[in-house]
Amino acid sequence: MRLRLLILSILPLWAAEPRVVRYEPGLDDLKFVYAQMPEALRLKPGDIIETKTVDAEGKAFEARGRKAKGPNPLTGPFFIEGAQPGDTLVVRFLSMTVEGNEGYGGAGPGFGALNSTTYTPMLGGGIPKRNWTYRIDKTSNSAVFKANDSDFSVKIPLRPFLGCVGVAPAMAEARSSIVPAEFGGNMDASEASPGNTLYLPVNVPGALLFLGDGHGAMGDAEVAGTAVEVAMSVRAQVDVIKGKKIEWPRFENADYLMAAGIYRPLDDALRIAFTQLVGWIHDDYGLSEMDAYELLSKTAEVHVAEMVDPNYVIVAKINKKFLPTRR
Amino acid sequence: MRLRLLILSILPLWAAEPRVVRYEPGLDDLKFVYAQMPEALRLKPGDIIETKTVDAEGKAFEARGRKAKGPNPLTGPFFIEGAQPGDTLVVRFLSMTVEGNEGYGGAGPGFGALNSTTYTPMLGGGIPKRNWTYRIDKTSNSAVFKANDSDFSVKIPLRPFLGCVGVAPAMAEARSSIVPAEFGGNMDASEASPGNTLYLPVNVPGALLFLGDGHGAMGDAEVAGTAVEVAMSVRAQVDVIKGKKIEWPRFENADYLMAAGIYRPLDDALRIAFTQLVGWIHDDYGLSEMDAYELLSKTAEVHVAEMVDPNYVIVAKINKKFLPTRR
Amino acid sequence: MRLRLLILSILPLWAAEPRVVRYEPGLDDLKFVYAQMPEALRLKPGDIIETKTVDAEGKAFEARGRKAKGPNPLTGPFFIEGAQPGDTLVVRFLSMTVEGNEGYGGAGPGFGALNSTTYTPMLGGGIPKRNWTYRIDKTSNSAVFKANDSDFSVKIPLRPFLGCVGVAPAMAEARSSIVPAEFGGNMDASEASPGNTLYLPVNVPGALLFLGDGHGAMGDAEVAGTAVEVAMSVRAQVDVIKGKKIEWPRFENADYLMAAGIYRPLDDALRIAFTQLVGWIHDDYGLSEMDAYELLSKTAEVHVAEMVDPNYVIVAKINKKFLPTRR
Amino acid sequence: MRLRLLILSILPLWAAEPRVVRYEPGLDDLKFVYAQMPEALRLKPGDIIETKTVDAEGKAFEARGRKAKGPNPLTGPFFIEGAQPGDTLVVRFLSMTVEGNEGYGGAGPGFGALNSTTYTPMLGGGIPKRNWTYRIDKTSNSAVFKANDSDFSVKIPLRPFLGCVGVAPAMAEARSSIVPAEFGGNMDASEASPGNTLYLPVNVPGALLFLGDGHGAMGDAEVAGTAVEVAMSVRAQVDVIKGKKIEWPRFENADYLMAAGIYRPLDDALRIAFTQLVGWIHDDYGLSEMDAYELLSKTAEVHVAEMVDPNYVIVAKINKKFLPTRR
Repeated sequence: MRLRLLILSILPLWAAEPRVVRYEPGLDDLKFVYAQMPEALRLKPGDIIETKTVDAEGKAFEARGRKAKGPNPLTGPFFIEGAQPGDTLVVRFLSMTVEGNEGYGGAGPGFGALNSTTYTPMLGGGIPKRNWTYRIDKTSNSAVFKANDSDFSVKIPLRPFLGCVGVAPAMAEARSSIVPAEFGGNMDASEASPGNTLYLPVNVPGALLFLGDGHGAMGDAEVAGTAVEVAMSVRAQVDVIKGKKIEWPRFENADYLMAAGIYRPLDDALRIAFTQLVGWIHDDYGLSEMDAYELLSKTAEVHVAEMVDPNYVIVAKINKKFLPTRR
Repeated sequence: MRLRLLILSILPLWAAEPRVVRYEPGLDDLKFVYAQMPEALRLKPGDIIETKTVDAEGKAFEARGRKAKGPNPLTGPFFIEGAQPGDTLVVRFLSMTVEGNEGYGGAGPGFGALNSTTYTPMLGGGIPKRNWTYRIDKTSNSAVFKANDSDFSVKIPLRPFLGCVGVAPAMAEARSSIVPAEFGGNMDASEASPGNTLYLPVNVPGALLFLGDGHGAMGDAEVAGTAVEVAMSVRAQVDVIKGKKIEWPRFENADYLMAAGIYRPLDDALRIAFTQLVGWIHDDYGLSEMDAYELLSKTAEVHVAEMVDPNYVIVAKINKKFLPTRR
Repeated sequence: MRLRLLILSILPLWAAEPRVVRYEPGLDDLKFVYAQMPEALRLKPGDIIETKTVDAEGKAFEARGRKAKGPNPLTGPFFIEGAQPGDTLVVRFLSMTVEGNEGYGGAGPGFGALNSTTYTPMLGGGIPKRNWTYRIDKTSNSAVFKANDSDFSVKIPLRPFLGCVGVAPAMAEARSSIVPAEFGGNMDASEASPGNTLYLPVNVPGALLFLGDGHGAMGDAEVAGTAVEVAMSVRAQVDVIKGKKIEWPRFENADYLMAAGIYRPLDDALRIAFTQLVGWIHDDYGLSEMDAYELLSKTAEVHVAEMVDPNYVIVAKINKKFLPTRR
Repeated sequence: MRLRLLILSILPLWAAEPRVVRYEPGLDDLKFVYAQMPEALRLKPGDIIETKTVDAEGKAFEARGRKAKGPNPLTGPFFIEGAQPGDTLVVRFLSMTVEGNEGYGGAGPGFGALNSTTYTPMLGGGIPKRNWTYRIDKTSNSAVFKANDSDFSVKIPLRPFLGCVGVAPAMAEARSSIVPAEFGGNMDASEASPGNTLYLPVNVPGALLFLGDGHGAMGDAEVAGTAVEVAMSVRAQVDVIKGKKIEWPRFENADYLMAAGIYRPLDDALRIAFTQLVGWIHDDYGLSEMDAYELLSKTAEVHVAEMVDPNYVIVAKINKKFLPTRR
């Protein structure tokens, strides 16, 4: 494994000025499981990482005559110093920029929410294999959908996010880069985008953060199985909350608390997300569980992130304006 | 059955001026099933109906010392002249106003998304019975949540909609007012609100439209099992599309196509909603099914209306700006 | 509605000798919903009813140039005198005989466990429409499967049962003859066969018992959507347990307690069946709920009756040899 | 890692006489993931392995003052020479004997089919923690259930099987010993017992076979979350089918073809099991897929192995007497 690593600037003249570290992986540096393994780079709490992710099929490298070894190639892992099992990893997404001039989409046998798949197999033909290429229009900041079977085309505004953000799982598991679960992973949640902060449980020393699967734009549920799949430049700040243990990924921004639930069927993903959100409100904002439950019944927002991966992802949200002052 | 019926104005001096008909039910006029039965009132296509619905527990009547015979009392049914099986009923929601000074919420044994219920029963205690009363603040157009277990209170903006809008089912079925299904019913979908149009399949002569279960405000998924339950004044225009057959309820407004999927688990509700939306786009906007599927994977919005009734409700949406010109 | 009704024998010389009543429906007597309606016949508790059911597509009548109005034509309803809401109806299945020389099977678009269906719709082709005819071989008491696409044939032993046994539903509902639910109905449970007793909740005066959908033989889960569909002669004794209320159908024979759970997904059907069985053991055999739960974890048997109807059916069982003496 | 390894007999004087190899793990030899790792022992195709497994909580070691590091301790892995990705591993279960005088059962917060759990979380109390100890009665070959809350006890016949039988997963995954999936694992399937043969996909060189979680007796679905948990002596013969690739575990005996489906909800587990069984019949017995589908609808048997682990397990079966001659 060859590391192309540049310390851009080590200039914390004040403590307030975070260190910025840049890392760009080569083809052989890409990972395909979330697991405990030697780190690509060590970061300190407060550091800003600037890095790149390749698209879900690694087409950037195909262009150079090589091929990624699997789906959803991952950049990393990043070892965050001081992170220990039982802590919470903090990832503040600062900026994401779509790289290149093209994005990719596809549907076909074996995947998708409206199709016979590995885990919901049916008899009968299923759908055919089809691909779509999206021109990235930087001027209008959009991806251009072009129909295969008619001459219609339309611009879709870019709203970049990372489909994959995860850490090494608990219990010494290693999970494929296509799986979302308690450790985050292939959540395909548009909440993994600039302006939002992600919290993940730390399961191994250093947490080991993996990033990948840039999405230029995606609909709720990702029904056909792909977003506008792109390579991406990412800027994020990492941090650690010592001694705070969470069970499932959480997001937060200035306005919202957001809890992810990740399993099948969607019913259970929703139950996980909402029991987590009830607990979060109870613990940090002091409402009783029953009051929190009732308040969510009147004010919650639900985001079906995806229903196409090995586990499904639902994010349950509440606007902080409906909550008491944080303790 | 006593009908309190007033023809407000029969003044279509021009064809363009719709007739407005007012109907206010008494306690004994309320219905508790969607089924074929004698109508409360006959309407013509184009008529505007002005009517009232009582809250889900019929508390308005309790105040007067009487009690509704069941949950979700329904106003109607309204017979729409000319509507025949195989047609589509059109309901344009014009205005909804919360009646009275109080709304109601509750959680407890046997219902709710995070609880042992009739259809997802568990051993163990489950949650206790709790009630919340919401003061309706007309000045700020909000309902006031007041915690039971602390002294916190917060205003929730009113966004009134009808929890129940349905017609007589197909196959001579009669369904309880708590059930949502192909005929609409207890969809608890905030899309049933002013500015939106609802399409329902016509299964019996006259369609037989039932309205009820006013919601002053509700969170996605209605997790604890209730909204801010209120009595409501409703104004809606009915119409019929002859010879157009749909299989599931659909909504539409100036900006969106919206298809409802109604079943358990949520996965299947989502599959129903999206296959309907693919078909709608294909039929009315001319994209191939595969192009529609791909475009939805990039642009769709998903609304989890409720996960607490006998069937669950998901509404899948696409903004019309992403579609070709309608045929 | 024309009743062809013969009182075979009214000879209870002793109280111990039950009255036998025979009823054979004509085409116009068949029903297609479980609902409150005028009875076909009145029975007293203890009476034995001898009657006939047509096959799921009413082919017997097709042979005579007429056609049943829908799927799963039902014989009945039988009004059981003295049965009141809150009681339990008892149906002891005494004998079932396959009528005619042919049974029918079919698979095709829109139904079946491994196929795009009404409630689990998929894009893509699905499976083709296919039919199979089964010769009934009375000598060997079997139905002969004959492959469509090769020259293989094999005998399947006849084990006749009624796919449909139900009563009028609660809450003034009317449900299609293809639906199983709390009231029984299209359970497709092989437990509805000679040697077994079925308990159903009484929801309306007289209970109103409907019978239909004879199955000559069926695999667990009925995956393709049909059994060996046959017309049948049925002999059953009815009875009423006054003041005993059950929530879901139950079966019993000399060896087993059997509780049915009926909903989607199978997970919830199983939860219903097992919470009912825990309650049954607790109430009638005196084990604590936790002891009953543990004992079932070591000894229960599970029968997946069907996964193809609008609701799915699971029967959870325990052999009485593992239980204390009944109270 | 200390290997206590005895080559019992290397006496294949004829090719027909299989080599018998014995392996008994110490506490530090136990594994807690299915994953690629150094083998405990190398076997050749045709070898018989004689080994021991500890119970799900490793109580045998607790008795000696030490504690297993996790649930479902695994014995192995066994490297089978010549097994390569794309082959099928064959495990013929020859004998299983319950070790020791006690078995264990338990129910409590966080697990079980009728309870709030990690992946189906609910609000409210859930059930209390309870344990049951089962005396193993070798004379009657049974485990004795003794109620906690009354003085009832009853003998349950021993029918030993391995709850855990699996290989290293594909895609470089490592999965916890509590997980069943494509690689087998914690299937809790009573089919993993003497007289039956298990087929597993080979994902890594040598396959790496893990065994554990002996069950003295278990009910279908394992509803409370445990069987009669015991230590066990196991005798099994391993073999390899070169160039034969299967996607999911399969079982076979003299009378039955049995295909496992492993996922959530049960609906999808059933779909996997049956599409696999249709394919098996089509490939090896020459029926068309549609004929196989129809024949299963009339003759299949379904075993709900468990509904309590991270994935659920269903085994779909057909008696070979209903099939054509194998090709």
